[in-house]
Amino acid sequence: VRIVELPEIEAVLDEDAALAAVEDGFRRMQRGGVHLAEVSHLAFGDPPGDCHVKGGHITGDAVFVFKFATSFYRNPELGLSSSNGFMIVVSAQTGEQLAMLRDQGYLTDVRTALAGAISARAIVRPGSKVLGIVGTGIQARMQARMIARLLGLTDVLIHGRSMDKAKALAAEIGGRAVALPELCARADLVVTTTPSTVPWLRAEMVRPGTRIVAVGADTPGKQELETELTGRARVIVDSRVQCVDHGEAGWAVRAGLIASDALIELGALLERPIAFEPDEIVVADLTGVAVQDIAIAKTVWNRLAAA
Amino acid sequence: VRIVELPEIEAVLDEDAALAAVEDGFRRMQRGGVHLAEVSHLAFGDPPGDCHVKGGHITGDAVFVFKFATSFYRNPELGLSSSNGFMIVVSAQTGEQLAMLRDQGYLTDVRTALAGAISARAIVRPGSKVLGIVGTGIQARMQARMIARLLGLTDVLIHGRSMDKAKALAAEIGGRAVALPELCARADLVVTTTPSTVPWLRAEMVRPGTRIVAVGADTPGKQELETELTGRARVIVDSRVQCVDHGEAGWAVRAGLIASDALIELGALLERPIAFEPDEIVVADLTGVAVQDIAIAKTVWNRLAAA
Repeated sequence: VRIVELPEIEAVLDEDAALAAVEDGFRRMQRGGVHLAEVSHLAFGDPPGDCHVKGGHITGDAVFVFKFATSFYRNPELGLSSSNGFMIVVSAQTGEQLAMLRDQGYLTDVRTALAGAISARAIVRPGSKVLGIVGTGIQARMQARMIARLLGLTDVLIHGRSMDKAKALAAEIGGRAVALPELCARADLVVTTTPSTVPWLRAEMVRPGTRIVAVGADTPGKQELETELTGRARVIVDSRVQCVDHGEAGWAVRAGLIASDALIELGALLERPIAFEPDEIVVADLTGVAVQDIAIAKTVWNRLAAA
Repeated sequence: VRIVELPEIEAVLDEDAALAAVEDGFRRMQRGGVHLAEVSHLAFGDPPGDCHVKGGHITGDAVFVFKFATSFYRNPELGLSSSNGFMIVVSAQTGEQLAMLRDQGYLTDVRTALAGAISARAIVRPGSKVLGIVGTGIQARMQARMIARLLGLTDVLIHGRSMDKAKALAAEIGGRAVALPELCARADLVVTTTPSTVPWLRAEMVRPGTRIVAVGADTPGKQELETELTGRARVIVDSRVQCVDHGEAGWAVRAGLIASDALIELGALLERPIAFEPDEIVVADLTGVAVQDIAIAKTVWNRLAAA
């Protein structure tokens, strides 16, 4: 087995190939060509933490992938990252382990940003110019970069709980830190990237025609968009089951504002693009699905194997 | 993460410590002190194969363990082992990966043999002298060695589908290759170790008072003991759920010969030993449980960490 550490992963990752692989993964998931293993989970109480193992195989692929990830929330008190994990790439011909990608969460960050960019491209209004980013962490930075690259939205407004961090990020990526009302008033596309449990975006703030990509809600209890806002939007989901369980869509479904079968899966949207009305509010609710992990790990492995 | 290859694992494994840890694992499972993750599984059709990921944590342990195992049945045609896999030892304090044990199935073989020896000790008739082994593979060899060591049964009879292999194994471990009727007529304790789907031991062959440890049946369809034999025996199971699903016990339960709540879990037997009647037939049905993997991986890690 080849043990691959983060610097080598960063060096070989081809973002264009990864983008294509993740998009292809969503399409194949829609067509029924992805086998996902049951998620295996352990929870810890003292100190609090959890461990998730997810994996799957895209039919026809030479490899399959499992991702092992832990979160121990008090690690920062010890000077350690709360997240740890790796992806394992395995031959679908022999079951032999080919590579252990010790990515320290990097590939998860990238595949999340790629799904954001893919969703943004699928829902963006033609002629859009201004990107609004809510949050100042890794996803804020990555989403801004990917979307600027893919859609050419280089006029970037940033809002965060800490305006100092928003200013720092704005300086870094060439954007501008603004108050939330200004961001909502000017952005054509808003990407929310925070682990908030209190919604940032209220229905009354958001203009008709705004397109929103929400990547923060990935476990029950998290919410970045007011239920009323999601309830009145056209909602795209990366996985109907997951988003009803713990995404933005779930809040609106539970409130009776939207039916779960009205949710449109991202794979279906990619296969059959929709011409949204110019003044429709469209929300892409991304909770993160295993096919993204499979796709990005496969991309890295293909480069390693070819080298 | 420390990558540990098979030779180092073999060098540091302390069988006494592993035996104690596996027995302790069964007891703790009984007392409710083991958290097991859901098993994650992928099946492959062309070529046929499967992948299982199992893991768990024994309450209070400093580490938890996941085992990743694949079986690709046509690998031998390529000159490869059908089985591949590893165990990963993770800190239960921080979620950091401590070691990847690349044991090539060795630790699974050992923990299976240890469970056989632990079961044998719990059900053996006082004064027993003769051990009968059915099968000639790795488990036949390992069970013979462990049971001889733990119970002092050094008069060993061996039967296998291939009498040449039975003779070779007999020569290696100092036993004698015999026909099955002779084995049944003389053995006090019989250990069946084959992946058979056709029962070896028929009810009429087995003398009253015979104690049987069956380790072969680990997936649906496998069966080493005639249903009638299991149905008239006192049956110990490593896991009621697993043994009803795919162990020897399942055949007798489905035939209506035994009630599933009459099955006695090994952990319960260890906690509250039973004085079996001298002429009772007692069967220990072992399908393999995750706590064995956790226990043996922990044992290896403790030695590595102390060194």
